[in-house]
Amino acid sequence: MKKLVTLFAAFTIFSSSSFAQQALSGGSDLTSPEIKADRTVTFRLKAPGAKEVKLSGDWMPAQGWTPGTELMAKDKDGVWSLTSTPITSDLHSYSFLVDGLRITDPNNVYLIRDVASVTNVFIVPGGKADLYTVNAVPHGTVSRRWYSSPGNNLTRRITIYTPPGYESSKQDYPVLYLLHGMGGDEEAWAALGRATQILDNLIAQGKAKPMIVVMPNGNVAQEAAPGESTEGLYKPTMQLPHTMDGTMEQTFPDILKFIESNYRTAKGKENRAIAGLSMGGYHSLHISRFYPNTFAWVGLFSPAVMASDKVSSPVYANFDESLKKQSANGYKLYWIGIGKTDFLYKAVSDYRSKLDQIGMKYTYRESEGGHSWTNWRDYLSEFLPMLFK
Amino acid sequence: MKKLVTLFAAFTIFSSSSFAQQALSGGSDLTSPEIKADRTVTFRLKAPGAKEVKLSGDWMPAQGWTPGTELMAKDKDGVWSLTSTPITSDLHSYSFLVDGLRITDPNNVYLIRDVASVTNVFIVPGGKADLYTVNAVPHGTVSRRWYSSPGNNLTRRITIYTPPGYESSKQDYPVLYLLHGMGGDEEAWAALGRATQILDNLIAQGKAKPMIVVMPNGNVAQEAAPGESTEGLYKPTMQLPHTMDGTMEQTFPDILKFIESNYRTAKGKENRAIAGLSMGGYHSLHISRFYPNTFAWVGLFSPAVMASDKVSSPVYANFDESLKKQSANGYKLYWIGIGKTDFLYKAVSDYRSKLDQIGMKYTYRESEGGHSWTNWRDYLSEFLPMLFK
Repeated sequence: MKKLVTLFAAFTIFSSSSFAQQALSGGSDLTSPEIKADRTVTFRLKAPGAKEVKLSGDWMPAQGWTPGTELMAKDKDGVWSLTSTPITSDLHSYSFLVDGLRITDPNNVYLIRDVASVTNVFIVPGGKADLYTVNAVPHGTVSRRWYSSPGNNLTRRITIYTPPGYESSKQDYPVLYLLHGMGGDEEAWAALGRATQILDNLIAQGKAKPMIVVMPNGNVAQEAAPGESTEGLYKPTMQLPHTMDGTMEQTFPDILKFIESNYRTAKGKENRAIAGLSMGGYHSLHISRFYPNTFAWVGLFSPAVMASDKVSSPVYANFDESLKKQSANGYKLYWIGIGKTDFLYKAVSDYRSKLDQIGMKYTYRESEGGHSWTNWRDYLSEFLPMLFK
Repeated sequence: MKKLVTLFAAFTIFSSSSFAQQALSGGSDLTSPEIKADRTVTFRLKAPGAKEVKLSGDWMPAQGWTPGTELMAKDKDGVWSLTSTPITSDLHSYSFLVDGLRITDPNNVYLIRDVASVTNVFIVPGGKADLYTVNAVPHGTVSRRWYSSPGNNLTRRITIYTPPGYESSKQDYPVLYLLHGMGGDEEAWAALGRATQILDNLIAQGKAKPMIVVMPNGNVAQEAAPGESTEGLYKPTMQLPHTMDGTMEQTFPDILKFIESNYRTAKGKENRAIAGLSMGGYHSLHISRFYPNTFAWVGLFSPAVMASDKVSSPVYANFDESLKKQSANGYKLYWIGIGKTDFLYKAVSDYRSKLDQIGMKYTYRESEGGHSWTNWRDYLSEFLPMLFK
């Protein structure tokens, strides 16, 4: 027994050393980022060998799509640091530039992939980002499942949120279909969009109705997000075949059928919502119009609007007529959100004129900013409380 | 209409540029790692400003717990590269050392966190790692749920794999409880362990029975994995309170009750297995002994064996007597796996002597290597086919 106990002591000592199972340690003892009560944030990087280290953050003034940078200062131990001015409450991303090489922060394990880029994230609390944090409230279940899509001749991965209490009740729930943008996938809304935290929090506050939220993969040529499919661990790309050629719209019934036959869903269009960002706004626009009596709640977040004139799909034929039919069939909410500096602002403005001509009612939300997850999280947080009421 | 189409064209151009929604681009056009048919792998990093770049990989000879490194060579464009000798089929991790600073590969979006370290991973196919890849087989569902643990006065997050066909059948399924090691959490087996891919593949090959696999969080002071709890996005640490003091064992019935009342589980100990690595092997050993008629299948992967003599918990009292009781009650499999160079080798050897003295039967598997995920994935791949038969 004595011998065994001694070996346990060795295990404890060993465990408290830098041992991290098989992984290669990339960290150090620094804290970075350090978020302070006044919303200033300190970033630190130990790099004694570097000649210049810059911080690049999504809150800095950008040059077009190139994010801004700020020089960091080095101390005698080779630790570079920078304390920001107060940063708005949000989920923020950043990286370091070490002698021109863009790297992630080795002291921050929280990373999110967006297409082929991985960046560190942090949350500044004390404002709207309190909806993005895990709070002491009941939590829904998040499942990754695979559904059969005969229309795409594929089995495809899908992310499904069921609200707290779903498993223990016998109730039927309304469903929101929540679609990602170009370069995204079935992980995008849960990762960058913080959708599951927003849902848990708004439901707990009594502001949103308990609902099922379905986050499919809108890239119909893909089985699943990068790394989750038979394609293996390849380098993701922004553009994929058949994303905006009508296929997603035509094969959407595969998803609807899967959900309605596998979950306790409340029936009828009053219990179905569809919303999406950018390309997902485009998909939501066209799906809700192509099946013009299916959704009573539609959300277009910074939507792309029209198909290319090179695309010939029955989905995009009879555009005005199908909108009129959708309008005549009736719905509860047709919500459009766009940022003032969004490159799609003009397209959305033209689309609103068309809706006005047709006499199709919509709710319009114009925000600051552009084509960004900051806006899409805002839009989702505003859109959810309006649903199914 | 013309105007809208023109704006669509702008969207397409814009989308095919380096735009990646709001994230800050960290990548470049290089391919890294590039895995070739002969199992050599080429790594590349563009860092014209660096004086020295090294590659550090888990397949290189290590110095104790310090992984080995190899110098990379720079070309005229400032791209550093290295082509490895053939690497064994496995999930491998690596990082770069740029003038002494350990960084991840900006061209590889596949990363796994282990405690406070994040490293890139890649898979070399053509051998045992074919079990770790997503293949064209039916896929199980992976759910993250929250269960009530009155014993810990917490609601806690848990990862649950249900096999292909679970949702569409009315069948009851056997259950494996699969426990992680120190510094791990409810994500460890799915991420580093590739457990869901191994299960999908072995079930599809008819080698493993369809089963539910429950991956709880063994750190009873935690609600959930880092970043998934009310503690927010903090820096994870290796050691946590109450991990090996009997609390996990004493509160294990909260998990059992949750699973058996929420899933179609086949009843009786013949339909229950428990296995774990390192600290999870310790938990499996003690849980199966403390509830000596609950599990007919036990797997101890590189297990820590004994509680510290400073711990006074009823769980660790009457050690030999409870083992004898477990032995007398009968079981189907008591499986122990350990690597020849594992720092726990001697402890496991002493434990086997104890079992021999008691006359408690076990299956012993001695492998090459040490305390590593390479071994734990192997052990899981060997253990699963033996269960529930």
